[in-house]
Amino acid sequence: MNTLPPKGMRDFAPEIKILRDEVFKKIENVFKRYGFDPIETPIVESWEALKGKYGEEAENRLIWRFQLPYSEKWFALRYDLTVPLARFYAERRPPLPFKRYHIDRVYRYENPQKGRYREFYQCDADVIGAKEPFADIEIIDMMADIFNEFKIPEYTIKLNDRRILKGTFEEKLGLGDSELMLKVFRTIDKLDKIGKRGVINELKNTGLSENKINYISEILETSNYKNEELIDFLKKFENKEVKNGIKLFEAFMDYSNAKDRIKIDLSLVRGLDYYTGMIYEIVVEEPKIGSLSGGGRYDDLIGMFSGKNIPAVGGSIGVERLIDAGLETGIFKIEKYTIADVGIIPLSESVMKYAQEVASELRRNDVNTFIFYESTSPVKGIKRLERKKIKNAIFIGEDEVSKNTVTFQNLETRERKEYNFKELSKIARSLHDEG
Amino acid sequence: MNTLPPKGMRDFAPEIKILRDEVFKKIENVFKRYGFDPIETPIVESWEALKGKYGEEAENRLIWRFQLPYSEKWFALRYDLTVPLARFYAERRPPLPFKRYHIDRVYRYENPQKGRYREFYQCDADVIGAKEPFADIEIIDMMADIFNEFKIPEYTIKLNDRRILKGTFEEKLGLGDSELMLKVFRTIDKLDKIGKRGVINELKNTGLSENKINYISEILETSNYKNEELIDFLKKFENKEVKNGIKLFEAFMDYSNAKDRIKIDLSLVRGLDYYTGMIYEIVVEEPKIGSLSGGGRYDDLIGMFSGKNIPAVGGSIGVERLIDAGLETGIFKIEKYTIADVGIIPLSESVMKYAQEVASELRRNDVNTFIFYESTSPVKGIKRLERKKIKNAIFIGEDEVSKNTVTFQNLETRERKEYNFKELSKIARSLHDEG
Repeated sequence: MNTLPPKGMRDFAPEIKILRDEVFKKIENVFKRYGFDPIETPIVESWEALKGKYGEEAENRLIWRFQLPYSEKWFALRYDLTVPLARFYAERRPPLPFKRYHIDRVYRYENPQKGRYREFYQCDADVIGAKEPFADIEIIDMMADIFNEFKIPEYTIKLNDRRILKGTFEEKLGLGDSELMLKVFRTIDKLDKIGKRGVINELKNTGLSENKINYISEILETSNYKNEELIDFLKKFENKEVKNGIKLFEAFMDYSNAKDRIKIDLSLVRGLDYYTGMIYEIVVEEPKIGSLSGGGRYDDLIGMFSGKNIPAVGGSIGVERLIDAGLETGIFKIEKYTIADVGIIPLSESVMKYAQEVASELRRNDVNTFIFYESTSPVKGIKRLERKKIKNAIFIGEDEVSKNTVTFQNLETRERKEYNFKELSKIARSLHDEG
Repeated sequence: MNTLPPKGMRDFAPEIKILRDEVFKKIENVFKRYGFDPIETPIVESWEALKGKYGEEAENRLIWRFQLPYSEKWFALRYDLTVPLARFYAERRPPLPFKRYHIDRVYRYENPQKGRYREFYQCDADVIGAKEPFADIEIIDMMADIFNEFKIPEYTIKLNDRRILKGTFEEKLGLGDSELMLKVFRTIDKLDKIGKRGVINELKNTGLSENKINYISEILETSNYKNEELIDFLKKFENKEVKNGIKLFEAFMDYSNAKDRIKIDLSLVRGLDYYTGMIYEIVVEEPKIGSLSGGGRYDDLIGMFSGKNIPAVGGSIGVERLIDAGLETGIFKIEKYTIADVGIIPLSESVMKYAQEVASELRRNDVNTFIFYESTSPVKGIKRLERKKIKNAIFIGEDEVSKNTVTFQNLETRERKEYNFKELSKIARSLHDEG
């Protein structure tokens, strides 16, 4: 019988679950410090709620959608946390600005491969109902704080603005809000994958004139510019969209706590078509992990359920990649295999009652206490605890019962110590100091 | 456009999400104190993994099972956390006894009604690989500790053993492991709903003789017996199964910390057919909520994936009912509408930079700090914070900037106080003392 979870999905044994929970907790704590509130929405959505929101590829190939044998209705597993947020907002209309975070599972029928799963977690934080620039800056600063929290030494915040690309292209290439423009965006988006030469080659297939392609090439060239030089370069444009983008960049330079990490990058496009202003990606260079966070402003999306336009900006931590790459590169280590602090080894059947009293007293003192249900020898007991990677043993034999004590042993140092029953809280304190 | 979640599923706004997270945390902390480790398995399982495990009704009507438009394979959303545990165990074979907890969502295509949802959480704790009685006792003691943790004043732990019913029925009614016996069990299970008379009437339809029905009636009569009287009553039986059950009851009387709460109840059956020994339910009488926890021993279930029998015992907290009923009866109160401790109100555009520095400093001191992105008047700012139920305001005007201070106001007492920027950690301390 097949005992594996479905393809692209994972079981998490305690040691991974403990680590993942810690990672989520750290991210959550930063979100909370920034005053973002948690919400929750169901894993299952009506298909009609997701339909038309993610583009053709997602709808025809990636969204988990289905009917049940006993229902005509189409359901879907959510594809991200953003469309559910839009639905939630339309339904509840919380007071604005509504700053919320959401850490939970999403589903994509991808071809599973390294770092790509069919069930995975997203960690999103978004602000609904705030215009630029301060909400945009807060999102970036908050995401940077998360990277600082994980002590990631080298990362760059790539920053761009959809209006800059659109505006410069409009002015120089005469491309309005057209399919061709989107195609150009998507091609530039591949820069990291196919290189500048690859991008230029693909652009040639779009029918753009050589002049225009040269101009795009010039834009890609600006990746060496410092932020100030780039802003100066952009000031040559007359286009209003460009001017708005520049204003945002300047606000970042003035106000962002993370400004030393920011690199304005005109070649940053990001795939999703719904961004309307600021877009960003955070790329970790040391260790070489790549993009671990992305997001931007999407002023037209939240309104799709509520019927009126409402500005929004947000970002997401690529937490599965963070964890996978973090484990590979040593940012994270699997060190805690169990939440149990101590394991009680009853040495004979006659001590079971006393052993249970010891367990109760330790638990009252917030010591996570594992106990064996059968008596065993010290050697076997230690072996069994070691297999479970429980680091401390408490032996209870008839001797201990008669003296009203326990024998405590640190299984790493092998150091032993006897404690009186009344002193068990000292074990609690010594363990809590340690850990 | 419909903005509601699917029928039987729920969105949780911050105030409910915060409360639910606290409830889950409390339950989780008790599980941890008992040395139970967390695992996680996917929401989606292969249909073949669930098939044949839950009986006909579930398979034909209740399990969310489906194919995707682009896949022949049948998937299912998990129906409980027990079958996934059996699959996980077979796949990973952790060292025994394996004590694990799992708090997560499950799915049933029920007709939604009060307290019954199509997506809901279960909080399970189970021990794999331990024979009775100490594992059984630990499960019950742990569940009782959860009820104590929530300060539920009046609850009863109804305890029974499948072997007792089976054994006495075998001896008195000549019923072996038959369909008829299961039918009798299921009828007795309805005692709370249809009363003794109802049970007797239903039993008449099974073709049982009057003598035998009288005997069952006598068993139901024992609900007035004290535990010791009941044990004495059972000692009259010769059946080995009954003797084993008595031994377990006696161990509970000797060893359980929760023994004063335990009421042995021979009419307790519990629906699920897979129990093989101890079964329990915890019923809350004050406030009148009913059964909030149930479980038992199931020595044949875990082996269904691994192919060899392995004993197991576990219990589950009916957490949705606990929360729903807890809110109705006042065990829980919605008091925290936001995780934000303070809200910063910038009084003019010129102070935005200083306001951000104040926010950063508070956040460094672990104060969950909300900030408005636009300047506003004090009156409007307070109104907006009050709508968000943020309880403390920090006003920052040009005056504060020039003095390097902030004006802090508790919006409930209306008390105001000025703090120097360098003293902001004092705000942190005063808030943490409060809350």
